[in-house]
Amino acid sequence: MTKPSILISNDDGIFAPGIYALWEAMSEIGETIVVAPNTEKSAVGHAITISDPIRIEEVKRSNGFKGFSVNGTPADAVKIAVKSIMKNKPDIIISGINAGANVGQSLLYSGTISAASEGTLLGIPSIAISLDALRDMDFSTSKVVAKKIVNKVLEHGLPNETLLNVNIPKDTEGGIKGYQITHQGAIYFKDNFEKREDPRGRIYYWMTGDVKDTDTKLESDGVAIKEGYVSITPLQLQMTNFDFIEKLNEWSL
Amino acid sequence: MTKPSILISNDDGIFAPGIYALWEAMSEIGETIVVAPNTEKSAVGHAITISDPIRIEEVKRSNGFKGFSVNGTPADAVKIAVKSIMKNKPDIIISGINAGANVGQSLLYSGTISAASEGTLLGIPSIAISLDALRDMDFSTSKVVAKKIVNKVLEHGLPNETLLNVNIPKDTEGGIKGYQITHQGAIYFKDNFEKREDPRGRIYYWMTGDVKDTDTKLESDGVAIKEGYVSITPLQLQMTNFDFIEKLNEWSL
Repeated sequence: MTKPSILISNDDGIFAPGIYALWEAMSEIGETIVVAPNTEKSAVGHAITISDPIRIEEVKRSNGFKGFSVNGTPADAVKIAVKSIMKNKPDIIISGINAGANVGQSLLYSGTISAASEGTLLGIPSIAISLDALRDMDFSTSKVVAKKIVNKVLEHGLPNETLLNVNIPKDTEGGIKGYQITHQGAIYFKDNFEKREDPRGRIYYWMTGDVKDTDTKLESDGVAIKEGYVSITPLQLQMTNFDFIEKLNEWSL
Repeated sequence: MTKPSILISNDDGIFAPGIYALWEAMSEIGETIVVAPNTEKSAVGHAITISDPIRIEEVKRSNGFKGFSVNGTPADAVKIAVKSIMKNKPDIIISGINAGANVGQSLLYSGTISAASEGTLLGIPSIAISLDALRDMDFSTSKVVAKKIVNKVLEHGLPNETLLNVNIPKDTEGGIKGYQITHQGAIYFKDNFEKREDPRGRIYYWMTGDVKDTDTKLESDGVAIKEGYVSITPLQLQMTNFDFIEKLNEWSL
């Protein structure tokens, strides 16, 4: 049996520890290729680069890690990997391991999700994977989870236009409690803009925010990881609110 | 009766002709405030600026147009407008008038949509509006349509987490054929990367693409505008594929 071909990307950039851990894990189960942004591209949403030239550079580390960096967004990286770098479409795409969870409303802003969404649009089974930690990141559990889920997706496939969003809880004593299939929950950042003055006396703002979660059930992505479960959410890319179409037809426009 | 308060934004930037036309139209029916990116931010998806300072500048034109430019994305502009610039939440947000249609898969990349989505996340009825033309843009029909739809939304409201995506056909002889309620169709760009060499001998790529549409029914957004109808699609922001959850629970993870 030939090994599966696995395209790895992310939004934290090709030099992030999470993509390195993912590359290590995926190398155990398939032929890997890494194509990722050259710098951090968090919160870029599903941006693509249409008005600037895109450049590709080879990246090699002494420990065997190699890949291609792209001076664009996560979606750019996946597009150009599939269209111009790889000879054949990969069997699967995995984006991550992101530093920080991607749950609730934050999915809409997430570069990690957008790399996987782009793969989905290209007809390739795709997974986004994130660890609910921003520092002291230990990827050992994440690597085990990533291998398990990739193998399951290779075995079962995914429905059309559907990707998986996987979130791993912070390492807790006694390890993870298990796997929980979830939906995109209500958890969100209540944004604020902090007003400051720069050394030249000009006003500027920093976006800040507090996490708010009104969800209580384990079937919500944010609750599942807080309770120590790996959260797996199937996502789809059709945005239509079909339920509202009938009502809109009564507006007599 | 007090006039409705209308927040106007876009992704083509505060100096684009489309936002000026929208401001003219909205000024006839409400108290307007314009807050938009300082430069073109097309295809930025639902990006937000979390690692850079955000600055706001007042923009005034001799013809009465005034507003605030933001050195960020469309989502940034709407967030900071509501959180820091306006004293009270607006009654409605409208984003556009975009140069070029926002239909099918392109919704996922659209900055015009993201400004309206951000408004929706903030609990404000929001509309994205685009004209299916990239040059020789005549906004006269679009202005009439914008006023009509804004008035309807002010009258009826919108369901939670739902926005309207409005696309206006190119001006055709005899005007528009009418209004068609649609769903997000399958129309997409089949991307390619054109490889070139710069004057210094370095390779770079331009993203290009051909429009492909497999839809045939008038209920698809792309077909509706091609046939001369104003397309109105209700969009929602919940990404979960609920149908697939049961199957995923059988994967025995």
